Amino acid sequence: MLVMGVDPGIAITGWAFVQPGRQGSGKAIEYGCVRTPAHTPLADRLLLLYQEIVALITEFKPDVLAIEQLFFNRNTTTAFTVAQARGVVVLAAAQHGVQVAEYTPLQVKQAVVGYGRAEKQQVQHMVKALLSLASIPKPDDVADALAIAICHMHSMQYQNLVQVGKEQ
Amino acid sequence: MLVMGVDPGIAITGWAFVQPGRQGSGKAIEYGCVRTPAHTPLADRLLLLYQEIVALITEFKPDVLAIEQLFFNRNTTTAFTVAQARGVVVLAAAQHGVQVAEYTPLQVKQAVVGYGRAEKQQVQHMVKALLSLASIPKPDDVADALAIAICHMHSMQYQNLVQVGKEQ
Repeated sequence: MLVMGVDPGIAITGWAFVQPGRQGSGKAIEYGCVRTPAHTPLADRLLLLYQEIVALITEFKPDVLAIEQLFFNRNTTTAFTVAQARGVVVLAAAQHGVQVAEYTPLQVKQAVVGYGRAEKQQVQHMVKALLSLASIPKPDDVADALAIAICHMHSMQYQNLVQVGKEQ
Repeated sequence: MLVMGVDPGIAITGWAFVQPGRQGSGKAIEYGCVRTPAHTPLADRLLLLYQEIVALITEFKPDVLAIEQLFFNRNTTTAFTVAQARGVVVLAAAQHGVQVAEYTPLQVKQAVVGYGRAEKQQVQHMVKALLSLASIPKPDDVADALAIAICHMHSMQYQNLVQVGKEQ
C-alpha cells in the first residue's frame, strides 16, 4: 500500500509518498515539490503541474492520493488558483485509476498531532517524528503533503481496527 | 478563425464555437453543454468533463478558448468546484496548443450588450440577435458560453481596429 499526499498550489505543489508501517508509523518513500515559474500564463503553469503529477503517479503507482478539502484561509484570488491546481491534480489521479481521499485541515491536524487546532510547527514536528526524518522537510508544502499522507494512513488504520472489532 | 467559448461548472459546462463575421456579427458553428452525473465523486466528474472538452477541441480545432475570470457570486463550495472544473478546461486547452483568453463578467456584458451591468435576459437576447439564432439557447450555461465567445470576437475586432488606426 502506497499513499500519495499532495498539497496543491499554482507556484508550489508539495507531494509525498508514504508507506504505512506498524502502530501508526510510516516510511517516507520519496517527497518533494513541483514549482512552476512566476509571470507565466496560468494555462502553462497548470499544464506543467499536471505533467509532473502524472509523471510521479506513473513512476510510483500509488494506491490512493490524499488531498485537503478546499477552504478559505487567504484571499479569494489565491483560493481560486489553488482550486484550479487541485482540479488538475485530482484529474491526474482519476485518469490513472488512483482513488482520491479528501480530508479537512482539522482532520489532518487531529490525525498527525492529536489536536485539531495544532500550530503548523507542531504538525511539522510530528511529521518528522512519525516518519523518523532527520529534519523537517522544506518548504512547508512538502511537510503538508507528508501530513495529509499520514492522515490518510491513520484514518485507514482506524477503519481497519473498526473492521477487526466488528468481526470479533 | 474559430473561437471556443466555455462556461465551466461541475454539473453543467456550456460550450460554443463561434466564427467571427463582418461588423461584429458572427456565426454559431455549434454549441451545447457537458453534463456530469450528480452523486458521483468529484474526480470522476472532472475526468468526464475533461474528456468531453478534449473531444470538442480535437474535433473543432479552435484557435482560442475564451473563458470568464472567476469571481464570487454564489457560495464558496460552488465557487471551488467551478474553479476545479475551470482548471481542467484550461489544462485541456494548454495541452492542445489552444490560446486561453480571459474576460471579466463585466467585460462580457459590455461586449455583448454595450452595458456592463446588463441583466442576464438582455445578454441572452443580444446573443440570439448577434448570432441570428432562432431562439435563445438553453440552458443558461450555453448562452453564457456563446456570450464569452462573442466577447472575445469583439475584443479581437477592436484590437484589429486599433491596429489599423495605428498604421494610418
